Amino acid sequence: MGGFLDDFVTMSTFGATARGGVDRQAATSADGKTREWFAGWLKDSEIRVEIDRIGNVFGLVEFLPGAPYILVGSHLDSQPLAGRFDGAYGVLAGAHAVRRVRDGVRAGDIVPAFNLAVVDWFNEEGSRFKPSMMGSSVFTGTLAPEVALATTDPAGISVAEALDDIALGRGDYAGPEVAAYAEIHVEQGRELDNTGVAIGLVATTWTAQKLEVVVTGEQAHTGAAPMADRRDALFGAARVIVATRELIDGFAEEELHTAVSELYVYPNSPVTLAREVRMLIDLRSPSQEILEAAVARLREQLAVIEDEARVQVTISGIVKWSSGPFLEEGLQLTARAAADLGLSHRRVATVAGHDATNMKVVVPTVMLFVPSVEGISHNEREFTTDEQMVGGVELLTVVVQQLVEGRLEAAGARASE
Amino acid sequence: MGGFLDDFVTMSTFGATARGGVDRQAATSADGKTREWFAGWLKDSEIRVEIDRIGNVFGLVEFLPGAPYILVGSHLDSQPLAGRFDGAYGVLAGAHAVRRVRDGVRAGDIVPAFNLAVVDWFNEEGSRFKPSMMGSSVFTGTLAPEVALATTDPAGISVAEALDDIALGRGDYAGPEVAAYAEIHVEQGRELDNTGVAIGLVATTWTAQKLEVVVTGEQAHTGAAPMADRRDALFGAARVIVATRELIDGFAEEELHTAVSELYVYPNSPVTLAREVRMLIDLRSPSQEILEAAVARLREQLAVIEDEARVQVTISGIVKWSSGPFLEEGLQLTARAAADLGLSHRRVATVAGHDATNMKVVVPTVMLFVPSVEGISHNEREFTTDEQMVGGVELLTVVVQQLVEGRLEAAGARASE
Repeated sequence: MGGFLDDFVTMSTFGATARGGVDRQAATSADGKTREWFAGWLKDSEIRVEIDRIGNVFGLVEFLPGAPYILVGSHLDSQPLAGRFDGAYGVLAGAHAVRRVRDGVRAGDIVPAFNLAVVDWFNEEGSRFKPSMMGSSVFTGTLAPEVALATTDPAGISVAEALDDIALGRGDYAGPEVAAYAEIHVEQGRELDNTGVAIGLVATTWTAQKLEVVVTGEQAHTGAAPMADRRDALFGAARVIVATRELIDGFAEEELHTAVSELYVYPNSPVTLAREVRMLIDLRSPSQEILEAAVARLREQLAVIEDEARVQVTISGIVKWSSGPFLEEGLQLTARAAADLGLSHRRVATVAGHDATNMKVVVPTVMLFVPSVEGISHNEREFTTDEQMVGGVELLTVVVQQLVEGRLEAAGARASE
Repeated sequence: MGGFLDDFVTMSTFGATARGGVDRQAATSADGKTREWFAGWLKDSEIRVEIDRIGNVFGLVEFLPGAPYILVGSHLDSQPLAGRFDGAYGVLAGAHAVRRVRDGVRAGDIVPAFNLAVVDWFNEEGSRFKPSMMGSSVFTGTLAPEVALATTDPAGISVAEALDDIALGRGDYAGPEVAAYAEIHVEQGRELDNTGVAIGLVATTWTAQKLEVVVTGEQAHTGAAPMADRRDALFGAARVIVATRELIDGFAEEELHTAVSELYVYPNSPVTLAREVRMLIDLRSPSQEILEAAVARLREQLAVIEDEARVQVTISGIVKWSSGPFLEEGLQLTARAAADLGLSHRRVATVAGHDATNMKVVVPTVMLFVPSVEGISHNEREFTTDEQMVGGVELLTVVVQQLVEGRLEAAGARASE
């Protein structure tokens, strides 16, 4: 039974990459090995393991038969060639917090008002199977399980098939009744690192729109077709990518984030102009108003590109994440706990989506950040120091203890959209 | 034993697509079925079938033991979702020409100076396995067979494995000694269609440069990473695609063709900025000077993009196709033959590469075009009329007859680079 840092080193060997990162996309063999190790850790810690129908892995400690649970967790899956902290840190921190609080209850030092559980949410990253935050979306009822299970990766393998192929797979556990949710995560931004603050108390989420865009042209010979005749979908798509980036020029710095990072070209042949390109445009802002203005500006640009590049540009789908505050009682509880531990802290916003963003809509939710050096994320160079990690585990343990004791409930906290 | 048009209809059923085209990339099952049918046609016509080590399929007629061969052919493979004429028309036209001339020799109407063969060159298209014109490049010695056989498709399957999996596969035939080569093809341009001329006599090829370009950035979170920190390889690649297209603005209309049609994004995740994009830039011109000026201008633009988009842009490989005339004696022979048949004709250039472009470097080579309606190519809508096809077969038969009779040799023709 190692300490947190030893466990973190062991966990980071699963799907390890040459440059210190991990590559364990959802339901790959590396994800399976990490889950298997995690379930083994729970069993060794005398924590009951259950799997639900979408492959979420729960570790359950029952103090009060029939009572709801305080749930703490994050996700073990990663982006391709990613850092070893993102998600996995929060799952392991949650597991250690659960074990310590359970031991405190056993020792009679803590009087529980709720049961306690840790969770590894399936497929938070969404790089192999869309959408991201799949496991928590099914759990909270915003995504139908049969839709999630039928989703396929670019090779045509379904979530159901992929899950059946890895350790723990799918189960029939219905999931715990949850009284409150807590999550800790690396920041994926620079605010804590820039300011030298130990803990971020997540106070709000940015709003986001994800636009699925299809550019349609016509196949032709790359060499022989007269330039004036061409309807080149990849040229049109390139114009859309440039226009998406240039949207930020119309707004103040850091008021708007824009990106295109995923793109499929058909037929993607060296000598045939593309007939179709599909891509995802990712727009985010702290302000709903700015985001709407950016989308309106983008639509104008798409019309210009249609005309000039002789292609059709269609927005085939839009996913909107609403912004919104985390609950005030949770922020006050975590701020006091951090202060008691002597950890500097500040309120921060999250630009990235998290499972906590799903959970906060249905149950009282608190979210904590530890710093990430230079804010490097989705990259093997992602880094958080041992001291920063351990500080986060200490704080999470105190927060989980107070949640188990019913202090957030006592403050009258409710879910916040 | 059907006529040409019946055979063309039958051949077009292999890999047929919903909208009248074919999809038979090299060494796919659809390519294999077409080859199998073609070999059956040859055997039914009492023409001996041999396969060489790179999967080129030859149909051989020996009149004079030990004498060199007149070779005629093209390719049965296609681009994805392509037209049914490109390549396949030329193979079938060549097969019919060979059978008719062979029958003429049998009947004593033709006195042969050479033997006669038809060929289906393996993988002319290069969409699945690069480079294009693979079979004729190995045959003419510019591509090592072991390099070609080890080439893999995007799924990691090698040419050797793919060939072993389809009808006819690979053989050990060393290939005929060739005295002269003839090929007929659909134009893939508009010149014949615009001018209402029945036959194009290919007099020259455009020069081309194909640049393999790698754009290198750094992975980061699409949402969370500050815009100023980003080194987004896909944004850099989009700028390169736009710059490639805009190169034509510096030159007169149709002096320069530019395209990017193939592009790979890594990791191609919806929430991780690309660390790398690989693409192929295709530049073509009738003038070597203009092409060199365009490449120089592109290099300047790439340096600007590196700076502005904070990425690295590396040209990792360049393939140059030299321009050059087809031999004058061949042009005169084919012009006379067309005139004798009452077929209108004009000298044209080919922008596209062909197996004839490889062959003309090593043996006297003639190339003929039939019109393609609106010049539509690498597209299911590609179309040539029955009458145009039959006119081409008639002319090719006369040309092959004259080559077998040694008339080009008599005119002192040599290979032309």
